[in-house]
Amino acid sequence: MNDRPRVREFGISLGQLPPGKWNAITDVPGVRVGHTTLIYNAGETAVRTGVTVILPHGGNPFTEKTLAAVHTINGHGKATGFEQIRELGVLETPIALTNTLNTGLVWDALVSWTLQRCAGELEVWSVNPFVGECNDSFLNDIHTRSVHEEHVFAALQAAASGPVEEGAVGAGTGMTCCGFKSGVGTASRLVGEYTLGALVVSNFGERRQLRVDGVPVGEELANWPEVDAASEGSIMIILATDGPLNERQLGRLARRAGAGIARIGSTIGSGSGDFALAFSTAQRVPAHPKERVLNRDRLAENAINPFFQAAVEAVEEAILNSLFKAADLSGRAGHTVYALPLERVGEIMQRFGRTIG
Amino acid sequence: MNDRPRVREFGISLGQLPPGKWNAITDVPGVRVGHTTLIYNAGETAVRTGVTVILPHGGNPFTEKTLAAVHTINGHGKATGFEQIRELGVLETPIALTNTLNTGLVWDALVSWTLQRCAGELEVWSVNPFVGECNDSFLNDIHTRSVHEEHVFAALQAAASGPVEEGAVGAGTGMTCCGFKSGVGTASRLVGEYTLGALVVSNFGERRQLRVDGVPVGEELANWPEVDAASEGSIMIILATDGPLNERQLGRLARRAGAGIARIGSTIGSGSGDFALAFSTAQRVPAHPKERVLNRDRLAENAINPFFQAAVEAVEEAILNSLFKAADLSGRAGHTVYALPLERVGEIMQRFGRTIG
Amino acid sequence: MNDRPRVREFGISLGQLPPGKWNAITDVPGVRVGHTTLIYNAGETAVRTGVTVILPHGGNPFTEKTLAAVHTINGHGKATGFEQIRELGVLETPIALTNTLNTGLVWDALVSWTLQRCAGELEVWSVNPFVGECNDSFLNDIHTRSVHEEHVFAALQAAASGPVEEGAVGAGTGMTCCGFKSGVGTASRLVGEYTLGALVVSNFGERRQLRVDGVPVGEELANWPEVDAASEGSIMIILATDGPLNERQLGRLARRAGAGIARIGSTIGSGSGDFALAFSTAQRVPAHPKERVLNRDRLAENAINPFFQAAVEAVEEAILNSLFKAADLSGRAGHTVYALPLERVGEIMQRFGRTIG
Amino acid sequence: MNDRPRVREFGISLGQLPPGKWNAITDVPGVRVGHTTLIYNAGETAVRTGVTVILPHGGNPFTEKTLAAVHTINGHGKATGFEQIRELGVLETPIALTNTLNTGLVWDALVSWTLQRCAGELEVWSVNPFVGECNDSFLNDIHTRSVHEEHVFAALQAAASGPVEEGAVGAGTGMTCCGFKSGVGTASRLVGEYTLGALVVSNFGERRQLRVDGVPVGEELANWPEVDAASEGSIMIILATDGPLNERQLGRLARRAGAGIARIGSTIGSGSGDFALAFSTAQRVPAHPKERVLNRDRLAENAINPFFQAAVEAVEEAILNSLFKAADLSGRAGHTVYALPLERVGEIMQRFGRTIG
Repeated sequence: MNDRPRVREFGISLGQLPPGKWNAITDVPGVRVGHTTLIYNAGETAVRTGVTVILPHGGNPFTEKTLAAVHTINGHGKATGFEQIRELGVLETPIALTNTLNTGLVWDALVSWTLQRCAGELEVWSVNPFVGECNDSFLNDIHTRSVHEEHVFAALQAAASGPVEEGAVGAGTGMTCCGFKSGVGTASRLVGEYTLGALVVSNFGERRQLRVDGVPVGEELANWPEVDAASEGSIMIILATDGPLNERQLGRLARRAGAGIARIGSTIGSGSGDFALAFSTAQRVPAHPKERVLNRDRLAENAINPFFQAAVEAVEEAILNSLFKAADLSGRAGHTVYALPLERVGEIMQRFGRTIG
Repeated sequence: MNDRPRVREFGISLGQLPPGKWNAITDVPGVRVGHTTLIYNAGETAVRTGVTVILPHGGNPFTEKTLAAVHTINGHGKATGFEQIRELGVLETPIALTNTLNTGLVWDALVSWTLQRCAGELEVWSVNPFVGECNDSFLNDIHTRSVHEEHVFAALQAAASGPVEEGAVGAGTGMTCCGFKSGVGTASRLVGEYTLGALVVSNFGERRQLRVDGVPVGEELANWPEVDAASEGSIMIILATDGPLNERQLGRLARRAGAGIARIGSTIGSGSGDFALAFSTAQRVPAHPKERVLNRDRLAENAINPFFQAAVEAVEEAILNSLFKAADLSGRAGHTVYALPLERVGEIMQRFGRTIG
Repeated sequence: MNDRPRVREFGISLGQLPPGKWNAITDVPGVRVGHTTLIYNAGETAVRTGVTVILPHGGNPFTEKTLAAVHTINGHGKATGFEQIRELGVLETPIALTNTLNTGLVWDALVSWTLQRCAGELEVWSVNPFVGECNDSFLNDIHTRSVHEEHVFAALQAAASGPVEEGAVGAGTGMTCCGFKSGVGTASRLVGEYTLGALVVSNFGERRQLRVDGVPVGEELANWPEVDAASEGSIMIILATDGPLNERQLGRLARRAGAGIARIGSTIGSGSGDFALAFSTAQRVPAHPKERVLNRDRLAENAINPFFQAAVEAVEEAILNSLFKAADLSGRAGHTVYALPLERVGEIMQRFGRTIG
Repeated sequence: MNDRPRVREFGISLGQLPPGKWNAITDVPGVRVGHTTLIYNAGETAVRTGVTVILPHGGNPFTEKTLAAVHTINGHGKATGFEQIRELGVLETPIALTNTLNTGLVWDALVSWTLQRCAGELEVWSVNPFVGECNDSFLNDIHTRSVHEEHVFAALQAAASGPVEEGAVGAGTGMTCCGFKSGVGTASRLVGEYTLGALVVSNFGERRQLRVDGVPVGEELANWPEVDAASEGSIMIILATDGPLNERQLGRLARRAGAGIARIGSTIGSGSGDFALAFSTAQRVPAHPKERVLNRDRLAENAINPFFQAAVEAVEEAILNSLFKAADLSGRAGHTVYALPLERVGEIMQRFGRTIG
């Protein structure tokens, strides 16, 4: 893990709810995250990409499906698996996040992994892989589709609980947010005895719009460092909770993700594929239930607001972590994307009346 | 009740699943139906309209809400209550069906009724009335908005279990389907120990397209009796079950309603507002639950297909009942809509290889 | 108009795009706004409510329909007209905003108005009224449904171009936002030669979450003045533009409205009915087109981002105007909602590094 | 092409509108269809699958995008590209249909093809492939994912106007419908000077439900030949027209596709992924328009009903063609799926009063 601070380590406390132990999606018991990061040059080709996976629980995600819902904030993207999750309300594979043009191969890798995972246990004829993507083509030779099955398997193999590596790793390797280097970020919030975690790959927004805890940092840094990165991209947002929300309630949760992006200053650009997936680990649905009727919990609707607040706060903080943790990176065609200059951010925050630390 | 036969009494058995005792939505225990029928002339004005209500259970529908879902087959209509049912997954008022331009007054009447029903029990500040409508302006002076609060209250007062009056009654009074007089129709199917019922107000379709159990009756009757009724309208479809479907599964059920219309031959005309509501009486949600977590059943997904089949069959039969039971009616501007000529239908069915009775 | 300043008069410039002449939805040529405000006591009853109408253009809104789209941010509300606007992409009545339980009567009034407006020109058999609502029951005896047809007609009669009265007027009369008195607010932005305007009725949010241009004003004012108002409600957002967006593009615009709410600090509470309607005056659709094929403009998709930014900025500023312009108001059950204390807001803004004025 | 007759050649005329010259989707000028069929055994492995592609026009589908809309009838499937088509209203790749588990590799192949197609013309950083799938695992060793890039390219290379090969070819190779061998089917209808075409890959339905022009053929053939095929699957429906429908209107068209399935007797089984895509060749949208405002036609809404009727009729006939044209096929695990026994169908149709030929 690199030595740049997370936003909270830097001294900025966002929101009103307390974070969990790791301030990460892995604070939700059972959730594991793994990365494969690809940074190399091959002749003229610069590869700056990767894959990040999230396993919803410690078991087999296909035979023990997870209640889930999706939401499209802006549909200019290629995320897969949405129609079946809408229809059936369950996630049945690991979540895999990668670069745009690698969606097909990563989809295929999730099929391979599921077939292997279920071998000897269940004959699998159909799988609904969930793949999310952002476009890293400013730094990465995206035409190469460099993320192969072995990289997806390695990320799944590496997936662990505990602290999550952030910044330019995994799917975040080549990403840019508001003209600064970004990548993967995560955060969590406690909601009474429950936990909600968010993980994002951030690749959206214009420099001028960037806000840190409401402070117009982007305007102050409008011309420094020089912006040559694309002015808009995408964001993938994954929300996990152990709260007993059913699939409709998880849809409500996913629809709050956009408020987290808006807090960063985004006006949800046309070219940005902004998608959210929310899942609950509280209850599983077997692939082939033996009972005709399943008994499941659902949250009373009047208890849901703290989860909404947690989702918005965690998404905001996860995006900022993806920026705070990412260092300068050079890549394709001599392009460089510079890190958010934290010292200057600190000065700006103080000028705008915020105590740092 | 008039003496025209229902489609099954006439000798046509539709579908493969058995109907319930009354072959009506009231076969779902607790479901009650009431009509107020308005047929009178006042000077130049011909009133041929009414209201039909459905109570989902014997209790207070507001304090004990019913799991529900809606589906829009073709959105050219004014049905109300959809957004909140989508968001929260519950129905909280009686269902009221009426004519298009009466939607507002009937909405208001459901508010009045709910306030009265809850008086002394719960302070009510917000109500989400479900009102559906079809356009009876061919026979009815729709501009008068003749359905008033007292008529809605009377229908609610009259609501009962058992056999349901069909044809030109209640909301169906002035309706026309495929160029024939129609109105309210209902049917039910047994799904193991569960029951599914449908009630429709039918007001859609072109004469030429009408099919009875697949037989092209509309083509055979293309010019007799003369068609001067509007060639397209709307349909409201209500599905009730005591099967333990949750709100997502009820949405799936509601999305099957269109297949029932298609079996009648409709190609879902542009001007037709075609809407479905599905609710389950198996479980209720209190207005102000005391527990933070509710425990509820859901059907195993692999047990849902018989409910889908039941929904399609019951909708098809309910539409045909709305036609079979409706007699000739004259109204506004000297217009007459003629009943489906059953004797000729019988001949046609036999010519097309069907045994009647 | 009261003498409290609008947010920009107060010295806070929000966003990056310039406002139009009136900084109001009426900057979009042809758009007119009218209010009827009801503030009176009748025995024990305190009426604090009203209706606000928006006419999309100077002609007959029914015979010359307006391209439009809707979006549900959180569906806990009773707004009407959504299904038909989704299906056909047009608005065909004035927009009317009122209190929750008055939705039905105001719906009915829009029917009456449309029938009268079209008399002698077109026989009207069906109308799709657009009614939006928020819940003012903290100050208003909402059970009375005090907004009658005459009040809707008066607002339509009074509708005018030019400056728009804001604060506790019309539909905004009894509303509360983030624990402060609010009501109607409006703002606009120039997008090259085009204009985009927003009008809101704000009635949502928790005190602690309120942000003014990113500054956590709500936290600073958490306990002063005392909050006894309900902690959440709703918001209706109307977006108008003369930019040539088609109905799909207007849907994209409407989906940006939520980012404006998020900038105010809201996490989109469960009990809040948050809805957006966007319409374009650039092109009309006749009720009965004579041509089989209509020729219409659409914006090139790569020119749409400034409209998105304008929508977010205008919604944020309109909400703040609804707060800045509303004075203290007392009503039902001895309740008082206090105005946003502007002097203290000014101090807070300066403490957080903002120049006022 | 095999010598089994199409349904119309067999003597059954479905619907009321006339078909085009080829009674195929290729009757829409510019639309081309190509297949790659894979039937071979490799050791224990039986491959019975393929890919079918549709090119919307003669140009580059990426640089000259096609107005399009999607609709999910039942979302139990893996079709890709939906979110972006919903957001932007355009199709930008060829349509590729294949088996379920091959979706990822075929997606990847469409990226490769698009990059090659645009080389030297336009730098492409993002592509939204449209891939549809049905599950052929009863006959095909689907785990092998045998459809490779070369097969997709070969189908694109072979794509042609004129008659379309139907039955067990391309994506239809291993499919089963209502317990009979099926595959690809197509049909068309004339709507005045315009044409509408449908192409389906059919893989859904239970034997007992099958209807041919309303005649309960499935009940009559319930036990012959023996059914050992899976009782439900999926259907992909592609609708093309040269009518000037805009993207909203194409969405309305796509939503009629389900009525075509219902006419075949389906009750839209839970496990079936039933999806429709509709596109119009009347107008294209450039990848990078030079103008800020585009001028485009749209159909007057009151002229749309014949297109709806055409869509329903063409889907019904395309499904029946997929059955009529498919011969017996054996495959994986010794499974055989038998062709629809046409002689018996003819007898049944006559017994039910239909004239054949």
